Amino acid sequence: MSGAKLIGVGVGPGDPELVTLKAMRVLKETDVVAHFAKAGHPSNARSIVACHLKPGIIELALRFPVTSELPRTSPLYCSKIGAFYDDAAAKIAANLDACRSVAVLCEGDPLFYGSYMHLQVRLAQRYPTEVIAGVTGMSGSWSASGIPIAQGNDVFTVLPATLPECELERRLADADAAVVMKLGRNLAKVRRALEQSGRLEQAIYVERGTTPDALMLPLAARLDDEAPYFALVLVPGWGTRP
Amino acid sequence: MSGAKLIGVGVGPGDPELVTLKAMRVLKETDVVAHFAKAGHPSNARSIVACHLKPGIIELALRFPVTSELPRTSPLYCSKIGAFYDDAAAKIAANLDACRSVAVLCEGDPLFYGSYMHLQVRLAQRYPTEVIAGVTGMSGSWSASGIPIAQGNDVFTVLPATLPECELERRLADADAAVVMKLGRNLAKVRRALEQSGRLEQAIYVERGTTPDALMLPLAARLDDEAPYFALVLVPGWGTRP
Repeated sequence: MSGAKLIGVGVGPGDPELVTLKAMRVLKETDVVAHFAKAGHPSNARSIVACHLKPGIIELALRFPVTSELPRTSPLYCSKIGAFYDDAAAKIAANLDACRSVAVLCEGDPLFYGSYMHLQVRLAQRYPTEVIAGVTGMSGSWSASGIPIAQGNDVFTVLPATLPECELERRLADADAAVVMKLGRNLAKVRRALEQSGRLEQAIYVERGTTPDALMLPLAARLDDEAPYFALVLVPGWGTRP
Repeated sequence: MSGAKLIGVGVGPGDPELVTLKAMRVLKETDVVAHFAKAGHPSNARSIVACHLKPGIIELALRFPVTSELPRTSPLYCSKIGAFYDDAAAKIAANLDACRSVAVLCEGDPLFYGSYMHLQVRLAQRYPTEVIAGVTGMSGSWSASGIPIAQGNDVFTVLPATLPECELERRLADADAAVVMKLGRNLAKVRRALEQSGRLEQAIYVERGTTPDALMLPLAARLDDEAPYFALVLVPGWGTRP
């Protein structure tokens, strides 16, 4: 056993080669790996590093009781998800109290829109904690599509697609470069906001950007508005490009 | 020789362990490594991966004739820097024409405010090109300081400190979470914009975030406004934190 320590480990956007040397070392050293997923589904973060997990390592599967079925602001969602994070933190704390190190696997970067943050705020005051930065999904996506996203004096903005349409429109018009995340059922709204802000022609739709079955195309060329939750839209900046 | 290919390689924010497996593989396979630096200075990107460079690998040092001595909008800056990128692209093209692969080392992530983008737009139409995403300096910084930067419906904005003070103030007031980059001689202006937008109390100053001599402290606790170019300020979001 390597001692009580909570470690948020960014495992990158999906390509198993976009894992850092530091994440690899932690996977070799840690006693327990914890991973989030939707109930009934495998963990994406776990599958990225599956081939690097030590045989016999203790695994702690943290399964969301609810994801996008309920609105995020509904009292039922808040009470269910709050209880889930409390319970997950308690399970991790039990391992830390037994002097085991616990690595929480995180897609992308742990402290950038990641579920891990809910464990960090519950546990970091009581236990030694380390966070290992990872390559974000958006970096993986613009790199795979070869699109320079922002340069020089560009203002770059990340917008959750869950924002109201008028907010999306206003902010898209006001940013040099933007990424719209969490598309899912919001793609039709995002398309309208891009059109109204005059950015639709530049927008690139990316799904599973760094995996072999990646899909990338101009959003204007997409005929329907079906999208998975983790798909995103890139709106490149660098208007002064030579 | 491994064939003509231009590869933009993100080597992460500074900690040599925050390099990806993919970057490591490319460093083993490539014929030439190219790296940017200010004239008379060593390349930061090269020093991050120095211990992984093959003995005898061909190195191409690309040295900026000017960095922050001239305003970015001045005609002299534009002509000097344009000629520099043209010349750098020609040197790389000569290697590609000789069927050598060329890896351009990039601090952070190549297509996120990186100098590599100027080579990509000059060469990608003529040669096979690949971009390998890296951990950004800002991810390295918030991870090292353990600060959850953005969550849920947060709008996250990256602001170059070179923007006019009123623009910084307006955009800081309008974002849930923000990072102000390229501090250098702009820190006094950034401090005033944070104060005016009511965000100074939350702002964290970070210098060399992922290196052993990292400096992190609340900006309000800093008594002077001296800062290196690559220092940044984090303004965390997640106002709904439980």
